[in-house]
Amino acid sequence: MKSLYDIISERRDTRHFTNDVVPVEVLEKALDAGHKAPSVGLTDATRYYIIESSDIKKQVKELFTSYHKKSANQTDSAEQKKSYLELKLEAIEEAPIGLVIAYDRSVLDKFTIGTVGSNESVKFSSVCAAQNIWLSLTEQGYSMGWVSIINYNHFKKLLNLPDYIEPLGYFCIGKPATDYGKQPMLQQLDWKQKLDKPIVKRIENFTPVNHLELENFAVLHSDSSELKDQLIDKINQKTKPLGSLGVLEKLALQIGLVFQTDSPKIEKPTIVVFAADHGIANHGVSAYPQEVTRQMVETFLKGGAAISVFCKQNAIDLKIVDAGVNYDFPTNASIINKKVAKGTQSFLTTSAMSSVEMNLCFQYGAEVVNEIHQNGSNCIGFGEMGIGNTSTASVLMSVLTKISIEECVGKGTGVLDEKLKNKINILAKAISNFNGESNWEDLISHFGGFEILQMAGGMLQAYQNKMLILVDGFISTVAFLIAYQKNPSIKQNAIFSHCSEEKAHIDLLNYLQVEPILSLNMRLGEGSGCAVAFPIIKSAVTFLNEMATFESAGVSNK
Amino acid sequence: MKSLYDIISERRDTRHFTNDVVPVEVLEKALDAGHKAPSVGLTDATRYYIIESSDIKKQVKELFTSYHKKSANQTDSAEQKKSYLELKLEAIEEAPIGLVIAYDRSVLDKFTIGTVGSNESVKFSSVCAAQNIWLSLTEQGYSMGWVSIINYNHFKKLLNLPDYIEPLGYFCIGKPATDYGKQPMLQQLDWKQKLDKPIVKRIENFTPVNHLELENFAVLHSDSSELKDQLIDKINQKTKPLGSLGVLEKLALQIGLVFQTDSPKIEKPTIVVFAADHGIANHGVSAYPQEVTRQMVETFLKGGAAISVFCKQNAIDLKIVDAGVNYDFPTNASIINKKVAKGTQSFLTTSAMSSVEMNLCFQYGAEVVNEIHQNGSNCIGFGEMGIGNTSTASVLMSVLTKISIEECVGKGTGVLDEKLKNKINILAKAISNFNGESNWEDLISHFGGFEILQMAGGMLQAYQNKMLILVDGFISTVAFLIAYQKNPSIKQNAIFSHCSEEKAHIDLLNYLQVEPILSLNMRLGEGSGCAVAFPIIKSAVTFLNEMATFESAGVSNK
Repeated sequence: MKSLYDIISERRDTRHFTNDVVPVEVLEKALDAGHKAPSVGLTDATRYYIIESSDIKKQVKELFTSYHKKSANQTDSAEQKKSYLELKLEAIEEAPIGLVIAYDRSVLDKFTIGTVGSNESVKFSSVCAAQNIWLSLTEQGYSMGWVSIINYNHFKKLLNLPDYIEPLGYFCIGKPATDYGKQPMLQQLDWKQKLDKPIVKRIENFTPVNHLELENFAVLHSDSSELKDQLIDKINQKTKPLGSLGVLEKLALQIGLVFQTDSPKIEKPTIVVFAADHGIANHGVSAYPQEVTRQMVETFLKGGAAISVFCKQNAIDLKIVDAGVNYDFPTNASIINKKVAKGTQSFLTTSAMSSVEMNLCFQYGAEVVNEIHQNGSNCIGFGEMGIGNTSTASVLMSVLTKISIEECVGKGTGVLDEKLKNKINILAKAISNFNGESNWEDLISHFGGFEILQMAGGMLQAYQNKMLILVDGFISTVAFLIAYQKNPSIKQNAIFSHCSEEKAHIDLLNYLQVEPILSLNMRLGEGSGCAVAFPIIKSAVTFLNEMATFESAGVSNK
Repeated sequence: MKSLYDIISERRDTRHFTNDVVPVEVLEKALDAGHKAPSVGLTDATRYYIIESSDIKKQVKELFTSYHKKSANQTDSAEQKKSYLELKLEAIEEAPIGLVIAYDRSVLDKFTIGTVGSNESVKFSSVCAAQNIWLSLTEQGYSMGWVSIINYNHFKKLLNLPDYIEPLGYFCIGKPATDYGKQPMLQQLDWKQKLDKPIVKRIENFTPVNHLELENFAVLHSDSSELKDQLIDKINQKTKPLGSLGVLEKLALQIGLVFQTDSPKIEKPTIVVFAADHGIANHGVSAYPQEVTRQMVETFLKGGAAISVFCKQNAIDLKIVDAGVNYDFPTNASIINKKVAKGTQSFLTTSAMSSVEMNLCFQYGAEVVNEIHQNGSNCIGFGEMGIGNTSTASVLMSVLTKISIEECVGKGTGVLDEKLKNKINILAKAISNFNGESNWEDLISHFGGFEILQMAGGMLQAYQNKMLILVDGFISTVAFLIAYQKNPSIKQNAIFSHCSEEKAHIDLLNYLQVEPILSLNMRLGEGSGCAVAFPIIKSAVTFLNEMATFESAGVSNK
């Protein structure tokens, strides 16, 4: 009998198998070992799928191949790419058994012990199961190889797995054809050496974490009647019929009052996109899977998103904030890290966040805006990204304005017909499930989103900093609603860039008694409305500063 | 020696420990077992932190406590909440050793094998290490408890962990005080029963994964062509919800069709302001004296007018055409001289121009546009200046659309109340005075203006040149109406920049069945609407050419 230590030492990630059949009892014993792995809150959420069909293996291999190529293109050098492509990283078609180890995230629909810190604990249980299976196969003289180089969404579609089943990968099982010289294959091939010892540190010191308090936001009274008259005069002296620049004249007046000058200049205009994930996204309220949040963040960083190209077009600085995306970004990503947690909890069953987390959001949002302000910006647009956040925004709008949830729900990024009805039902249920106190702070922490509350905190700070605040679409306006309820004076500094096609937006704008600049049936978020409307805001400042007066131009006034 | 199977079966998530010390060699052996766990791409990203200080444990316990309360509020019923709160879910202060198992996500900064499908594989490696440690401790007669009910961000701050270190949780290690009756504690306490067997399915069928299907695009034109399909495809492949850029998507499609390419570029955008005087201005129909026409032309040339500053702001070339101003400009003025005569005659009493003059207008307008086109422009906006020309435009609209003159008259640059009534009366009288033939050419020469007909001629030529035509406000749209009646296909090339506050404009846009981009209550003319709307038109081209696709960005489509 082999000792645990030997089994652990001999376990290999295997990519070379013999043709030997894997006896049923070997697989069953291994799966039983997986079943005995930890299962957070006794969820038993791990699911196993066995694949023996060579047709299916062929399809999986194709998925691997396309991603393998993509991976090769990510290598750091041409040399590395060459040696990477020579590596054998899977045995999908050769291994007699294909196993999919997955977890069923629908267990999160009910209360589950141990998931409040992070619902990743469910998937971690399944990983522990994978490791038990690996050890069991090793003990029985077999082995396994973990293939993770696939597009998981395609993979699920290929295997007809339901939406709530999340695979950890494709696992090749069989009798190993080699022991790689008793070391990892990548070490045997000199790709990399494994460290001799684990990296262990002793922690002796700590930083006490205080509970954060919401600051009091003072009301700024701009005693502006003199300046206001001066601005109106200046606008009317321009060589144009009185009032003929319509909204541009109103904007010029507003901007002059915000910056407290009759010659306002917009400096370093900046759009900040706050990104976060939402627990409610697990309930089928969005047209896209949650991972799109982080994928879009990566697209922002690479400059390929709508907001990226619009900011570039209009010379606007773009900043991306991780307010709580359910993903670990590389540390060298040019993202502002204000992660509160990896997504909120689902407010269908519980509070989306704790009151400490809510306070953190306001603090973080203010910090982001302060830094941008210190870098010389006086004009900031607020955009967002977060799969599921129209649901969050709809519920917030409903509970904060008392407008019925049916009127606050729209199609988001593209939820139609039956799914839309379902979305409304889920959100109505979430509201009726709420049994906390109906005070403002309870409501926003119960139903909030990290990015929405960070935006609200950022807007409040932008007001303190006497900055111009550009509000984007529906979700951004819900963040504004929260900021406005905290400090109604903020309206003086806010420009509403557009009216979104998300149906509740117009009602919300009416509720706030504000007029948007554009109405282009856009419903993209990301701050795209701010970016597209920005040149018009600039036109307001341009005419105020640069146009000739009747007098200077020698034009006859009426 | 215990068998692997026994160790796996006996491993427990332990919350009850004795006071026994954990010998250093036991912990070291366990950590070495962790180190032998899989490590994706040989990253060795797992990090271990040992905590023995009771002060630190106390702080960690506090973090647990605040989250534990939050968790209790998530329970599905009051009964469940009660039994939940009775469960002992940690042993942070009692267990002699605290261990943090974490992963260093900075390894992702470099190319790492096995992370292209999902970079979660790095953290999964660390979870496998946790399971190895658990098994090793069990084999040695010790045990571990995984505490995940904490806010990980606070936890990191408390322990001064760097931003790139991501803990899996806090692990309590010691000698177990109980074996929970050889079952999970939650089962022993009847919270839940563990399933007898793992859930295993066999996959026999699959769905081949093709390139993802595109949904229908809301189309502007009904005609179909290969290029159109290509453009719609390209628009739909961009990383954004289908149709979410609203009007920008329609514009992108239109511009692609006008330029006959799926990568359209706007070259040397130009706005031409056609200026002329009107005989009708002598009858008190305008708020300004006729000399303002030439004064404004001079202001255009000096760069002080609204159109001047907007064109400068948005990098648009500005050309000024003297189509018939009642003034002799110096020959060195940078004005395009297409003067037909020094203003039209008053159509209250006679024909505004002769048929020869009318034909000259079409010819001159075409010449202006051809020259701009030859200089490399493919996008031209049409603006105007002419005291009295809203009266001319109102009458033309009325006689060409058969809409009553009352409905076609507005306040122009600022005619109010009594003067407005007077304006309507004069124009109604002018129409009733007309005793010529009601053919199209007679109507436009009788009631026309030199700048309006030159614009119409220019638009017709721009269509011939496959240029994009930007229509400004009310008067520019009346010029378009004339061009449209001559050649209805011109609509394909025309973009209506805004809806003017001049009241008849919206009716005229509806008559033409076209949608303007902006609605900013502007009523200035000069092409100012084209200039202010231009960045939005550019945004349409920008997103079409510069945004990433779902595929190129690696973003999951629906």
